[in-house]
Amino acid sequence: MSTEKDYLTIAIQSKKAANILKTISNKKRCELLYKIHDALKENATAIQEANQIDLKESIENNLSSSLIKRLDLFKNNKFEIMLQGIEEVIALENPLGKMMMKRQLDENLTLYKKTVPIGSLLVIFESRPEVIANIVSLAIKSGNACILKGGKESVNTFRVMAKLIDDTLEANFEQYGVPKESVQLIETRDDVNHLLAMDDYIDLVIPRGSNALVRRIKDSTKIPVLGHADGICSIYADEHSKNLESSIKIIIDSKTNYPAGCNAVETLLINRRLNGWDSILKALINEKVTLHLMPDVKQEFLKLNPTLSSSEFVVNVNEKEEFDKEFLSFDIAVKFVDTVREAIDHINQHGSKHTDCILTDDEKTAKYFLKSIESSSVYWNCSTRFADGFRYGFGTEVGISTSKIHARGPVGLDGLVTYQYQIIGHGQIAGDYLGSGGEKQFNHRDLAFSKEDENDDE
Amino acid sequence: MSTEKDYLTIAIQSKKAANILKTISNKKRCELLYKIHDALKENATAIQEANQIDLKESIENNLSSSLIKRLDLFKNNKFEIMLQGIEEVIALENPLGKMMMKRQLDENLTLYKKTVPIGSLLVIFESRPEVIANIVSLAIKSGNACILKGGKESVNTFRVMAKLIDDTLEANFEQYGVPKESVQLIETRDDVNHLLAMDDYIDLVIPRGSNALVRRIKDSTKIPVLGHADGICSIYADEHSKNLESSIKIIIDSKTNYPAGCNAVETLLINRRLNGWDSILKALINEKVTLHLMPDVKQEFLKLNPTLSSSEFVVNVNEKEEFDKEFLSFDIAVKFVDTVREAIDHINQHGSKHTDCILTDDEKTAKYFLKSIESSSVYWNCSTRFADGFRYGFGTEVGISTSKIHARGPVGLDGLVTYQYQIIGHGQIAGDYLGSGGEKQFNHRDLAFSKEDENDDE
Repeated sequence: MSTEKDYLTIAIQSKKAANILKTISNKKRCELLYKIHDALKENATAIQEANQIDLKESIENNLSSSLIKRLDLFKNNKFEIMLQGIEEVIALENPLGKMMMKRQLDENLTLYKKTVPIGSLLVIFESRPEVIANIVSLAIKSGNACILKGGKESVNTFRVMAKLIDDTLEANFEQYGVPKESVQLIETRDDVNHLLAMDDYIDLVIPRGSNALVRRIKDSTKIPVLGHADGICSIYADEHSKNLESSIKIIIDSKTNYPAGCNAVETLLINRRLNGWDSILKALINEKVTLHLMPDVKQEFLKLNPTLSSSEFVVNVNEKEEFDKEFLSFDIAVKFVDTVREAIDHINQHGSKHTDCILTDDEKTAKYFLKSIESSSVYWNCSTRFADGFRYGFGTEVGISTSKIHARGPVGLDGLVTYQYQIIGHGQIAGDYLGSGGEKQFNHRDLAFSKEDENDDE
Repeated sequence: MSTEKDYLTIAIQSKKAANILKTISNKKRCELLYKIHDALKENATAIQEANQIDLKESIENNLSSSLIKRLDLFKNNKFEIMLQGIEEVIALENPLGKMMMKRQLDENLTLYKKTVPIGSLLVIFESRPEVIANIVSLAIKSGNACILKGGKESVNTFRVMAKLIDDTLEANFEQYGVPKESVQLIETRDDVNHLLAMDDYIDLVIPRGSNALVRRIKDSTKIPVLGHADGICSIYADEHSKNLESSIKIIIDSKTNYPAGCNAVETLLINRRLNGWDSILKALINEKVTLHLMPDVKQEFLKLNPTLSSSEFVVNVNEKEEFDKEFLSFDIAVKFVDTVREAIDHINQHGSKHTDCILTDDEKTAKYFLKSIESSSVYWNCSTRFADGFRYGFGTEVGISTSKIHARGPVGLDGLVTYQYQIIGHGQIAGDYLGSGGEKQFNHRDLAFSKEDENDDE
């Protein structure tokens, strides 16, 4: 892959493959996924050998232990879980051809609104090699072609798995009709940059990686991007939050269960009138969380707990900086607010539209909060860590989206489909209807529909 | 409006207003719309005086008669129809708080997926002054704040109507709580350019105007754009299209009923084996449609109809140019194809993903076509002119979208909402569940829901 022409070919072939793939029945798409599952399973040894090379090189290159842990495909049953994931996606309901509306416009003139694939996806992910199996199964299940770029640390594992998938598609083309260009692979960041310009052919970009990666991609393409740069999640502890013990448990879990997760809490807004608020902060210190306190919070906190004045876990805060950044660590920024409205305004301004939570026992306040927060997920009395496709019951997820339109929050198969209007007529023309020259009128009668209307399989 | 600061204020105030507006009940939003309706009705004389000035200036400036016709708000009951349109939007079901999913994740831990407003909309439209009433009613009904920019030809009408809406919002703020910045007005293209950079505050841009306008906007903003630049619609006349009379009627209607419409057909693909295909072309000539024929079509056509060799309605075609452009006139580009697949590939490559149609009596071919075409609307045996919000039964439309994601095709209220996940818990934390440190398991039980779950009104 070296010239512009090559990238154009990749993009065009992906779009062409997408337009064939979408006509293949769910049954055939699923059978093909089983073949991919089997090919990966039967070649576990070859994949493991390649994975060992990646691991060895990563250790030699002094990569972080957490990265090396993510790279290792054969620890903690990861390989088996990956294979099981393919089977789970196969078992999901066909996401295509689902009827969303069936409306008689006039006698023998029926409008249908049905789910269809998006088209060609460009998916950029990081070091975890099992993601290739997740994405390929979600893409083929949803009838979308995909172009994949894995992290460079896992390139050897990635190449072997990609070759197996490629060979399986090629070997089964005659039987299932799925073009092998339905899954294509690219290897460098430069490849990605070229493809980001091909908005005529690529319909959606899904970056799964660091903030910097996602931001760079959003800034350099006209193609819609599904994902999130930041996960600045907030919790608001309302004055009517009576069960302090429960509130503390939720805040500690949201912060410490997995601080590197995008759904970890970064900001704590405390209603100034909440009784015993300082025990929340003491509990966080107890868990070795560093508190970035606004001056007035710090002053009040130390007044109530003078012995903590020299604590290494209490630091000063610069509001502008600390409420707009994702710590991804045992750090939390804390601020007083006077009202739920002030909390809402802070979150809508400083949050990243990911996941926010209110802790309160007052239903009216809670409902006002739920209704006012702009984020894709908003909670009442539970941990922000629940923002996750598996926990929402979506099976595998392609990512978590902080966009306002299309797919939001944890995104499963539903986020990989869009819809299309279809009309089946019997020769009707607009000129016969009122307003366009004729006298006929539309009746716009919504019709019931059943599973039978959805059967698009051969 | 002159400095960057001012635009930033407009954008910030719009977002703030949106975040208040979304908490106001449907009942109150509708009552406010009635007040706007009444204010416009009661001030018809003032609006008509302003409209007369716009008309006079347009005539003096030698603007086209079709533009002047669009400007005139008091011809053909347009003003009454506009007022009636507001009432129709009021009467529509509340688009907000609609339940899309209700799932028990665990005991007392329930996930909801509900419709919510998108936020702040920037709407740019052309000369027709009644559009301001359409957009304001759709925006307020759907809980979205909007920033409006009308065509410069209708600036006087627009100012008077805008002032009435502004005054109504201000006078009723105490009663309904809708901030007056929910509807804001800008006047110049320069204003638009500044706001297109404010992707932190504006969530969606809706341009309603020329191809050039839409393209310019798409190229100069990171904000998602709802709309379409081109309407390159195609009809494929299949070889199994037995009822030639019906096919001709559909093609003539699609081309001539309103050639300036984005849903008019621009490309005709004819299966080479279709009996009597040349009678379609003769019928088009009869309607004074200029045929842009591919060389082989021209040769065959003139062989069958030698007397037409000197017809002014038969011109040569340059494939590259003529199949990628929107004529918007009595012109059509015509090409032979050998198979339905070739027609599909042509349409997916050259069309603008607006609306395409197959004429055939073969169900299998038709279904393959419906399933294969990428466009937002795809038809079988009826006119492409049906692609329209009113004809689909959506009431008013904000535009027709050719995007692949979010709102597609004719867009009504549904396209102005998105969704949000809400979880109501009772202190649950992720750390108690399997995979995050604990033993509890999710049950993911989908629950039935009723209209009562949707009642978010006070």
